[in-house]
Amino acid sequence: MPELFHLPFCPLSRFVRLALGEYGVDVRLIEERPWDRREAFLILNPAGTLPVLRDDDGRAVPGASLVAEYLDEAIGETLGDRRLLPVEIDERIEVRRLMAWFFDKFYDEVAGPLVVERIDKRMMTLAQGGGPPDMTTIRAAKANIKYHLQYIGWLLRGRNWLAGERLTYADIAAAAQLSSVDYLGDVPWHEDEAAKQWYAKMKSRPSFRPILADAMAGMPASPTYADLDF
Amino acid sequence: MPELFHLPFCPLSRFVRLALGEYGVDVRLIEERPWDRREAFLILNPAGTLPVLRDDDGRAVPGASLVAEYLDEAIGETLGDRRLLPVEIDERIEVRRLMAWFFDKFYDEVAGPLVVERIDKRMMTLAQGGGPPDMTTIRAAKANIKYHLQYIGWLLRGRNWLAGERLTYADIAAAAQLSSVDYLGDVPWHEDEAAKQWYAKMKSRPSFRPILADAMAGMPASPTYADLDF
Repeated sequence: MPELFHLPFCPLSRFVRLALGEYGVDVRLIEERPWDRREAFLILNPAGTLPVLRDDDGRAVPGASLVAEYLDEAIGETLGDRRLLPVEIDERIEVRRLMAWFFDKFYDEVAGPLVVERIDKRMMTLAQGGGPPDMTTIRAAKANIKYHLQYIGWLLRGRNWLAGERLTYADIAAAAQLSSVDYLGDVPWHEDEAAKQWYAKMKSRPSFRPILADAMAGMPASPTYADLDF
Repeated sequence: MPELFHLPFCPLSRFVRLALGEYGVDVRLIEERPWDRREAFLILNPAGTLPVLRDDDGRAVPGASLVAEYLDEAIGETLGDRRLLPVEIDERIEVRRLMAWFFDKFYDEVAGPLVVERIDKRMMTLAQGGGPPDMTTIRAAKANIKYHLQYIGWLLRGRNWLAGERLTYADIAAAAQLSSVDYLGDVPWHEDEAAKQWYAKMKSRPSFRPILADAMAGMPASPTYADLDF
């Protein structure tokens, strides 16, 4: 069985869990705290970042974006309609553009700072960067998320799914990021009704179930986190 | 002819110029200052970042990594030995891992800060974030580059090129980043002889010529920038 080195609230790791879920691939989850800089982990991924997927041949695939490409190349052709990266060149560009949007831009501006400040820092020692959350960083991230929700809503006014007329990696990438922020209660869903409707649809997919069951001691999920009719 | 929206010292734009050079594809270069947030540019790439390649069909491909995938899918199969993304799955993972290393990690830790502080800020208004360079940021980037040079050297002790036995996107990604830093004179080449030899080999490729001819008024290149025997 493939193994995923991850953290439950890491939005990039969640992308891989959701994609594997959509593809019906079982995976063994291994919690890895990258700030421990464990030597065996750094051999798998010298960049020291999450997630890392290790496949049945022992191959290490580091990073959400590489895993997306790897899965498409390894099993994409066998998936038919369930393939999450379309074959047509314009659609591939659009899906990859939106993946990069959520993996890089949304992560840097919203989900990364919120998860680091409010979750990761509780697990780190002071020397590793732990301590109380920085409220200025949190406020900035909570201001930024509004623009991202509006962008999602804007995309959905012309499309059924984020990249076009069917579910793709773009939806998975966006939903993975939002789900981590939603656990913290920091998604202002009232800002955009179309974005909210789309996320309700994502949340009710079977691939989402394990994500909605994640919990952290001492920090319960927001009241509507696992609620399909939030 | 395809068009590239770029800046001459943007390391990610340089990757695209070098890749197109290796593939023998002519391109029209269009200087774009992303901090102007020009509306027509934001339509091409809502993220507002460089580079953006517009192909002959008017298709916009934003970002170095997307351009790499796009070129491979559009013309890769016609290129034989000159293809910069190998076809074998382990090699693809390794090339993409190293592209991500240089596009994300090296850019964030070294080339991005140096180019922003020392070049971009000279072109920006105060309201856009212009002004004198922040010396703390520059010092941090100059400390970080040593570890990256050592990592390049370490890779080259087991391989002829960064990702294996032949030239790939990994070499282009690394050389593009280093070239921008080298213009500023901030690469401590004495730190690693293998890295230096490899870069000398990269620099002497015909695809590098236009890059070595780039110059900025009021900020001349470091003495050895265009010197093939530096």
